[in-house]
Amino acid sequence: MKFKGVYYICLFFLIGSFETSIGVDDTSKPDPLDGVATARWLVSQNNWGVLSTISIELGGAPFGNVVSFSDGLPDKGCGIPYFYLTTLDPTARNTLKDERASLTLSESPIGSCGKADPENPTCAKLTLTGKLTLVTENTTEAEFAASALFSKHAEMKGNDQNHNILLLSSLFALLRTLILSTIFYLQHLFNEIKNIIATMK
Amino acid sequence: MKFKGVYYICLFFLIGSFETSIGVDDTSKPDPLDGVATARWLVSQNNWGVLSTISIELGGAPFGNVVSFSDGLPDKGCGIPYFYLTTLDPTARNTLKDERASLTLSESPIGSCGKADPENPTCAKLTLTGKLTLVTENTTEAEFAASALFSKHAEMKGNDQNHNILLLSSLFALLRTLILSTIFYLQHLFNEIKNIIATMK
Repeated sequence: MKFKGVYYICLFFLIGSFETSIGVDDTSKPDPLDGVATARWLVSQNNWGVLSTISIELGGAPFGNVVSFSDGLPDKGCGIPYFYLTTLDPTARNTLKDERASLTLSESPIGSCGKADPENPTCAKLTLTGKLTLVTENTTEAEFAASALFSKHAEMKGNDQNHNILLLSSLFALLRTLILSTIFYLQHLFNEIKNIIATMK
Repeated sequence: MKFKGVYYICLFFLIGSFETSIGVDDTSKPDPLDGVATARWLVSQNNWGVLSTISIELGGAPFGNVVSFSDGLPDKGCGIPYFYLTTLDPTARNTLKDERASLTLSESPIGSCGKADPENPTCAKLTLTGKLTLVTENTTEAEFAASALFSKHAEMKGNDQNHNILLLSSLFALLRTLILSTIFYLQHLFNEIKNIIATMK
């Protein structure tokens, strides 16, 4: 059985204004006044978000899709989100045509917002924008990304063999395409996000 | 004190393939094989999602933003998500330049996915696309939308008076602009979503 488009893809976000070194302590919430650390914490703590791309089918309209991701082994997040997608899904197809993308995260799913509304700035929000790019297969980065993904999303690893899931949906069973990502983060956007969008506790 | 851009905005999604009548029972999860009912249930049960627009600042790149929304009073969802946004926020500014938008929801925050991965098709996902449009002030729809929003997001109602929130962040305090939405839903897209993206239990 053949599948359309098997790719390793890497999304680079250059987080130019990040002053902390790669590798964050994602076990405790940072000082909310430290936007950079809080952004890294959000990436490390969340295991899913919404990846927005430019839709081919909709003539250039924006298209958001729920995706699982990982930025590293548990408690060892590197700040770089990796995705496991397929070109059977519009998001991956869109990316191969136009690599511009944004990944949007909320603190709400983590459960640390208490009773604050998800739109309340005390409940952190983060939008990362950059380019979604294929990761080269059989490289150290591809190996790291696969390890990062499978450590947080065990179901991904067994997709090919899990016939129960195959029966539930051909989509999930066909998730053979690995879209791996790092981030080229635009500093001016990050500053804007820090000030306007990703208001932290 | 004056605020930039005070608008009532309405996003219309025409959900052409919806066979159920307006008004869903959002207290119990529908049969997962009924994609339409499950989509309505997801809209009704979630109180936040990611609204993606075409970014002005980023030259047409997609930009997703965490937003709170409501489609009606609790247990009386109408299937039409309403938003309370401000043009101090890029999403609203983008919308006034290009009204194309998508709203992306996951079943994961509802808590009914169990241990399933958010990317597992047994954990429902939904992407609605359409046009984000200003709702006319002082109309029945504006009144309904405000009621829908404030019933599920009590913090929104008191923004002007809540000086504690004002102190926490100028952004949330300045949420005076009401973006209210219904959806012009593209049926061919809905069918695609039903088959590929929004795979339900």
